[in-house]
Amino acid sequence: MFDPACPLPFTDYPAVLLAHGAGGRLMHQLLEQLVLPALGGPAAAQHDAAVLAPADGRPALTTDSYVVRPLFFPGGDIGTLAVYGTVNDLAMAGARPRALSLALIIEEGLPMDSLWRVLCSVRAAADAVGVPVVTGDTKVVERGRGDGLYITSTGLGTVPPGVDLRPARIADGDAVLLSGDIGRHGIAVLAQREGLAFETALLSDCAPLHQVIAALLAAGIDLHCARDLTRGGLAAAVVELAMQSGRGVRLEEAAIAVSAPVAAACELLGFEPLHVACEGRLVTYVPAAQADAALAILRAAPGGEQAACIGRVGGRGVVLRGPFGVERPLDLPAGELLPRIC
Amino acid sequence: MFDPACPLPFTDYPAVLLAHGAGGRLMHQLLEQLVLPALGGPAAAQHDAAVLAPADGRPALTTDSYVVRPLFFPGGDIGTLAVYGTVNDLAMAGARPRALSLALIIEEGLPMDSLWRVLCSVRAAADAVGVPVVTGDTKVVERGRGDGLYITSTGLGTVPPGVDLRPARIADGDAVLLSGDIGRHGIAVLAQREGLAFETALLSDCAPLHQVIAALLAAGIDLHCARDLTRGGLAAAVVELAMQSGRGVRLEEAAIAVSAPVAAACELLGFEPLHVACEGRLVTYVPAAQADAALAILRAAPGGEQAACIGRVGGRGVVLRGPFGVERPLDLPAGELLPRIC
Repeated sequence: MFDPACPLPFTDYPAVLLAHGAGGRLMHQLLEQLVLPALGGPAAAQHDAAVLAPADGRPALTTDSYVVRPLFFPGGDIGTLAVYGTVNDLAMAGARPRALSLALIIEEGLPMDSLWRVLCSVRAAADAVGVPVVTGDTKVVERGRGDGLYITSTGLGTVPPGVDLRPARIADGDAVLLSGDIGRHGIAVLAQREGLAFETALLSDCAPLHQVIAALLAAGIDLHCARDLTRGGLAAAVVELAMQSGRGVRLEEAAIAVSAPVAAACELLGFEPLHVACEGRLVTYVPAAQADAALAILRAAPGGEQAACIGRVGGRGVVLRGPFGVERPLDLPAGELLPRIC
Repeated sequence: MFDPACPLPFTDYPAVLLAHGAGGRLMHQLLEQLVLPALGGPAAAQHDAAVLAPADGRPALTTDSYVVRPLFFPGGDIGTLAVYGTVNDLAMAGARPRALSLALIIEEGLPMDSLWRVLCSVRAAADAVGVPVVTGDTKVVERGRGDGLYITSTGLGTVPPGVDLRPARIADGDAVLLSGDIGRHGIAVLAQREGLAFETALLSDCAPLHQVIAALLAAGIDLHCARDLTRGGLAAAVVELAMQSGRGVRLEEAAIAVSAPVAAACELLGFEPLHVACEGRLVTYVPAAQADAALAILRAAPGGEQAACIGRVGGRGVVLRGPFGVERPLDLPAGELLPRIC
């Protein structure tokens, strides 16, 4: 049986070699003794494709490559991120996650122990959301042609009948709800990468969001749309949804929670917190009449104490009203704000 | 409308910048003007996950990362490979392909024109197999942290009722059928990479295999198992299936077609053709009574003129009988034979 507390299952190769990706004996050893035991489940069938039981409802498919640097950061690692990020993308379409696939691109020389730790994180995260990793792939590239490890995860989910979350359903008057404070993931990764120390420990907000979406739907909330706040942060999510729905939004800056260490780091580094990525936060657009009920559910979710209604759909463009009443337009971040935070 | 003959849609950025992956304005330009027009279809919805129509049958899921070097080779490129390789993995489970997802990891500095050409190949291949790219992701990593472009493609398919291809169904006495000559993909890529020239032009065998699988099933052939010959070549496929089914195989070396340029290149380079990857060849295991009927279908498929029955399931281990009657055991290739050919 797999136990994440177990040590690395073999020690004859302390680092990954090119041969571990070449289809031969070493690749078999890597898969049989390390990858499959950590991931478990039907992946052990080792067929070209995983065949699942039939399911009712509309299938939902999402894929994301994770290239976060460094691989390990306070509050998570690339494995946690790959599982939760993919589950969250399914959840944003109203889908219940069913199965995950995982493709690894390993740079020659990656310590075998790092690979093992990441795979253990994948397993722990997959177990936490109750979704199996059913298939995968492993490639190894030469030194200097990668950066330790890149993971591409794909999620297959099922959208229950009657659930329909998409930008076109956003309507004038909708309340814009934010599920908690923003920017912790981006700042935690950046701090780890650059060796910055803060007075207060800062952990990534990396977390799954499918349960809070399921709770909102179960309570009869007519979710028009939802989006998790990854690259480009809250600003990118809201601006993109405005572009895709053709409807403007007015946001109240004072309603947007930013923790003290994130605010301090942003001030120090010259970042706008609205542009900093989260990996466990979402915005959702709901009919105004259901805003209070939805907010109560968001606040009851783990880490959701600071969930808030941050604005209203209407007008043209995305306008942010500052704490002193000054209004300014909000746009997509330009340039390379924070590369490789997911 | 998309037309692969069209030139690159914008020229203000001749190469990909880190900012093209940062979630901001440049990323939007890249997606809106280059990625989505090339891929088209529901990807244009740009939601976190693609939602598909419900389908009967069991869903099949497969994923593979493509890290081939160089990106372009005689007979195909990384885009062709990503589409056909994924369609083939679905086909090996007996699944009809329904939808593809595509995740790009781009190295900063990749010429924009190279990206455009690859995306055009993806589109052409997806159109050829009639399967849409429904969702995707784009990440950019710094120079020296990638190698131009890596693509991870995932396929979702549906296994029709009654179809059941898997190693456990392999039975003693099954005929082992090979769909054509072997090794062209690996040698074509290697020749391009190393600047080797052969007297005869050598093209990759990269091609989709779902139609020949569908034709076999439609003819009532009881396919027990099938596997495409990628990393590790024919030898890896047959040895893995022997391990997974617990049944030995006896192969006739003389029945295995190897083209003259592949044979010459293998002799020159010291490779065993049985270990060289293909991207459009398969082995399939069928009841002996259906072998002739199945072979006729394999031979009628494009490029299948040299399809042959190459052996029989039975005994212990994988044994190769040479042209002069000498028998030798066949094992997985050891070490790094041909890194990064897919």
